[in-house]
Amino acid sequence: MMQEPQQAREAFRGGLRVPTSGCCPGWTQANLISLPREFAYDFLLFAQRNPKSCPVLDVTEPGETSASIFAGDLRTDLPAYTVYDHGEPIGQRTDVTDLWRDDLVSFLIGCSFTFEAALLDAAVPVRHLETGSNVPMFRTDRECRPAGGLAGPMVVSMRPIPAERVADAVRVTSRYPAVHGAPVHIGAPESLGITDLRSPDFGDPVRVEHGEVPIFWACGVTPQAAVMRSRPPFAIAHSPGHMAITDARDSDFLVP
Amino acid sequence: MMQEPQQAREAFRGGLRVPTSGCCPGWTQANLISLPREFAYDFLLFAQRNPKSCPVLDVTEPGETSASIFAGDLRTDLPAYTVYDHGEPIGQRTDVTDLWRDDLVSFLIGCSFTFEAALLDAAVPVRHLETGSNVPMFRTDRECRPAGGLAGPMVVSMRPIPAERVADAVRVTSRYPAVHGAPVHIGAPESLGITDLRSPDFGDPVRVEHGEVPIFWACGVTPQAAVMRSRPPFAIAHSPGHMAITDARDSDFLVP
Repeated sequence: MMQEPQQAREAFRGGLRVPTSGCCPGWTQANLISLPREFAYDFLLFAQRNPKSCPVLDVTEPGETSASIFAGDLRTDLPAYTVYDHGEPIGQRTDVTDLWRDDLVSFLIGCSFTFEAALLDAAVPVRHLETGSNVPMFRTDRECRPAGGLAGPMVVSMRPIPAERVADAVRVTSRYPAVHGAPVHIGAPESLGITDLRSPDFGDPVRVEHGEVPIFWACGVTPQAAVMRSRPPFAIAHSPGHMAITDARDSDFLVP
Repeated sequence: MMQEPQQAREAFRGGLRVPTSGCCPGWTQANLISLPREFAYDFLLFAQRNPKSCPVLDVTEPGETSASIFAGDLRTDLPAYTVYDHGEPIGQRTDVTDLWRDDLVSFLIGCSFTFEAALLDAAVPVRHLETGSNVPMFRTDRECRPAGGLAGPMVVSMRPIPAERVADAVRVTSRYPAVHGAPVHIGAPESLGITDLRSPDFGDPVRVEHGEVPIFWACGVTPQAAVMRSRPPFAIAHSPGHMAITDARDSDFLVP
């Protein structure tokens, strides 16, 4: 498994296409959403109003291809991208250089993969790391607070946790509010409008074993759900689970 | 001393003009900066890039006179306002109704008065509360990260703390990142470019007693320093120390 951000970014630039959960432990991972400048205020306000789903780590100037916490190239150094045309995903790419525009403002949003190292340090098991798959993510029936032309449902990631470790999982992840922080929901997926845990909307399904409780964290795919609902003319995002590996350390975002 | 936000706002609407430190313990206080819509993105980005100084608690729609965490009237319910014309303060007011504009976007920014109740609960003394004066605030020689047309120095508030309680003051305030959180600087005011603690740029001076250390927290007057430097055509702000008393509870912003 890759250990250093630059090494991981080079591998992704070379075409490696894998989910990044477990990659570069201790280094902060981020969701990407790049939108035309005319939508930047609405998006930044959307993020401010929905901080659990959209904790903003960094914002570029229009057209910039790197960021203060990301020394790589945002167009090539993520393992996979989803491109949206008027809210419709028009395909997965490993390189979006030819689609880049000088008016794109890129937002790096905290990712819950960041606190998985802390969960493992606390001996809280993380199922999708055990199985080597992508984390399962679900659209919920909870609406985000809209902002300008942007609205959409909250998306969550799910990790099954043994009942006796649920409190620890809350305690550990609470200390990382910039990467989604404490769970938004514990148990009872039906009350989030999730009818089948085996059919995630993004990522891969994982088993919930006897004695385990499904725990839901707000997810940085929420901006993509807003793009799909609100249909701005153009957007580039990471493919869910295929994150930007930044040069920030997890500890930069640790609160007491 | 007033206990409830609505009661305080009514008194301020009636013309009472006092600093709000110590007012309505347990209720969150906020800095106000209202800017024309065309500057809203630059300001929100400035805040995102300078989160210690400018933790955003709420943002209104253009022209709105209340906010989701402030059920009062932003034009009348603060004890005092400063109005800026091209960056020049053109006077203190207790009511800005006649100056209000439909294109003003109002930002409520966390205020360190919020954590003073927690300091007192921890038996950490707060000098300006003892003396019944406004907190002293200083421009520093530290530049904020600029955003678009906005740039300026970080402003800090200062509280002298007995040396043996400094660690407690750090620990307690660290838990409130949305209201400036941990100090940005402890001791050595000269290294912030502060030459005379007895001459604050805003608020009132307080004595630093023998055995006490001056502790500096980032301050929500920072946006006003940026307005003075960057000179947008129009802005309305609270007068330093004369805050918006919101309907949010301090505990809403407590982290583990």
